[in-house]
Amino acid sequence: MTQTVADTASVNDYIRRLGRTAREASQVLRSAPTAIKNQALLAMAQALEVEREALKVANDEDLTRARANGLSEALIDRLALTDARIDSMIKGLETVVSLPDPVGTIDQLKAQANGLRIGKRRTPIGVIGIIYESRPNVTIDAAALCLKAGNAAILRGGSEASASNAAIARCVVRGLEAAGLPAHCISVVETTDRAAVGALIQDSEHVDLIIPRGGKSLIERISRDATVPVLKHLEGLCHVYIDAFADLSIAEDIAFNAKCFRYGICGAMETLLVHESVATQVLPSLCARLEAYGVELKGCPATCEVVEMAAASEEDWATEYLGPTLSIKTVASLDEAMKHINHYGSHHSDAIVTEHLSNSERFMSDVDSSSVMLNAPTCFADGAEYGLGAEIGISTDKLHARGPVGLEGLTTQKYIVLGQGQLRG
Amino acid sequence: MTQTVADTASVNDYIRRLGRTAREASQVLRSAPTAIKNQALLAMAQALEVEREALKVANDEDLTRARANGLSEALIDRLALTDARIDSMIKGLETVVSLPDPVGTIDQLKAQANGLRIGKRRTPIGVIGIIYESRPNVTIDAAALCLKAGNAAILRGGSEASASNAAIARCVVRGLEAAGLPAHCISVVETTDRAAVGALIQDSEHVDLIIPRGGKSLIERISRDATVPVLKHLEGLCHVYIDAFADLSIAEDIAFNAKCFRYGICGAMETLLVHESVATQVLPSLCARLEAYGVELKGCPATCEVVEMAAASEEDWATEYLGPTLSIKTVASLDEAMKHINHYGSHHSDAIVTEHLSNSERFMSDVDSSSVMLNAPTCFADGAEYGLGAEIGISTDKLHARGPVGLEGLTTQKYIVLGQGQLRG
Repeated sequence: MTQTVADTASVNDYIRRLGRTAREASQVLRSAPTAIKNQALLAMAQALEVEREALKVANDEDLTRARANGLSEALIDRLALTDARIDSMIKGLETVVSLPDPVGTIDQLKAQANGLRIGKRRTPIGVIGIIYESRPNVTIDAAALCLKAGNAAILRGGSEASASNAAIARCVVRGLEAAGLPAHCISVVETTDRAAVGALIQDSEHVDLIIPRGGKSLIERISRDATVPVLKHLEGLCHVYIDAFADLSIAEDIAFNAKCFRYGICGAMETLLVHESVATQVLPSLCARLEAYGVELKGCPATCEVVEMAAASEEDWATEYLGPTLSIKTVASLDEAMKHINHYGSHHSDAIVTEHLSNSERFMSDVDSSSVMLNAPTCFADGAEYGLGAEIGISTDKLHARGPVGLEGLTTQKYIVLGQGQLRG
Repeated sequence: MTQTVADTASVNDYIRRLGRTAREASQVLRSAPTAIKNQALLAMAQALEVEREALKVANDEDLTRARANGLSEALIDRLALTDARIDSMIKGLETVVSLPDPVGTIDQLKAQANGLRIGKRRTPIGVIGIIYESRPNVTIDAAALCLKAGNAAILRGGSEASASNAAIARCVVRGLEAAGLPAHCISVVETTDRAAVGALIQDSEHVDLIIPRGGKSLIERISRDATVPVLKHLEGLCHVYIDAFADLSIAEDIAFNAKCFRYGICGAMETLLVHESVATQVLPSLCARLEAYGVELKGCPATCEVVEMAAASEEDWATEYLGPTLSIKTVASLDEAMKHINHYGSHHSDAIVTEHLSNSERFMSDVDSSSVMLNAPTCFADGAEYGLGAEIGISTDKLHARGPVGLEGLTTQKYIVLGQGQLRG
């Protein structure tokens, strides 16, 4: 539920009040049946449909201010709530309704020798703070995933989208109320004061997890200053390695797709590694195709001997271009490829193309990335492609959740111990 | 492997060098077969046996210094390496050898519509820093668990145990070398300079996780200053709630055992909650038994009307006594009991005694603790009792691992994506 800052003496007090009410709501939501949560999500979808025109009016207000403030066309495009985007928000809610509810699932229940049955029961995390930038659809996507996993959420969107986010928040509250859930299950921070972010990421009494969605500098700043645990999504410096034993009839397509499916996604390939024994077979045709598509190539000396291209610098190996540039390195062995990936990569997603069983096993075991792929392009790194239905982000952390994070990553497990009067000792 | 500070310009450089060598060793250890890791553990056990006298001589050095420094008898007792404790270190290694290796296990492997098979593969975390206080046996316990899970470890024990820890470290290195593993798989920090801890918990380039084992103030200080993620083990303010529908023939024993099995463990009951409808049946006999055993009782007004005892203050409900004191509160409902637990408890381990199915389900669902127990005393909260074989600690964090942490909690999962040339889009 939205609350106004005017009620409170300071931003800190305001955020702590949001935290306290979210904590209270989370204690109700923790045990809400799946049907009630789904009812709230469907009522939100209905409210978005009914409020379609009001959403566009609110969004126009943001767009007008953005233009007056001279925001770039790219940012203004991300900010715009078109009919298609409202449709997609509604469809997103319906997708989350269709996903199985992870809460209450019991795993690994085993009887011990003394008859105690001990297992793990999946349970909501509690209160999750989401901090994001301009795209207002995140408001509804994040709210839906948190709610379905039984968590209260505090959402802090970008100031440039404040009118749109407030309008969406009204639809969220209508959905919660229609299902008889506390309105504070989802709160939208209603101040553009930057101090609100600082207060939220340090309120470890009321907030269990912070998920920042945005650029690298936002995420780094939040990770540095937060005392609440942060689920980070940092860069994707992804590699495809074409092994000496690759099926060359699929290698070229995999590499091309990994780079060109979309330049801007974190699963896009940034460096191609090719075993020297297949370099002359693979590179000429692949490089011609990439260049024809508009990709600028930068190679190591051995690569430049096979195909003429600019020389890659040391910095290139460590750069996530997120654009039409690709660095290419010829390597003498699988070991050299894996060493390069573990050293320069960002431990996001890395692929090997090979038909050699031991080489594939060594790559899967030794490459320390959140996704390791065999004979598939890195651009598949995505919650929907992984069958998660939807994702709140792609974690580059090693703990808790790694890779695309769906509903399960928004829950935790507690031990259950079921006895009949057993005593210890 | 132990390194001396004299080689390096400063403690910071020394710790970073330890980190770098541990990171390198972890890349070998990541794919070490189970048999090799077990061979190292058994060779460590053998070295402890062979070096038994040398261990006791080193320990005597620590004990003499401790006595000269006026350490308390309790601390001196924790520091002592008796034959029985060396036996138990050896037995601990054999236990870890017998545990199944979690590394490489693949879960949830499913085919997607496009034929990609996607699942999760369990993998070591990387490099783990363990910071602990006086008990030297932690050196070998922590080393063994980290190694079996495929992680390199950097161990920082208390300065009062430095000679003992160095002697144990020599046995660890002999074990690693006997199995052909890099000696830097396990490093013992060989400086008593406190700055070493600060450097270790901020070396996020080389260290993936910090596990502090010690008192609350140590853990709080580390959590505050660390930039590396910390797996916390904070206090256990545990409750047993005797419901209106409890089987009274088991309730008294469960409560007595929860308090008196051992006062000093984190799973010991600190507050007993009793439903008012059974208070007069339960309390007189239970309280008499507790007092006869030497437990001091403090009650709420309603409890004091049933059994004469000191009045509990507001502060009592929030106190982890870790000793022979128990606070008792009479409650009017299951809801009041759960509200008390979620408010005053530390979310560690809490138990209900009941035969009422819905009440037990509500307790399991709504009590937000790392272990929730039915008809069993909270003192069962322990890795060995849970069938984990051994534990590195009991996590009071909600993320990654919650409750007793064994080998599985020292690993993480990466996604594997197995294709045959599928492309996206």
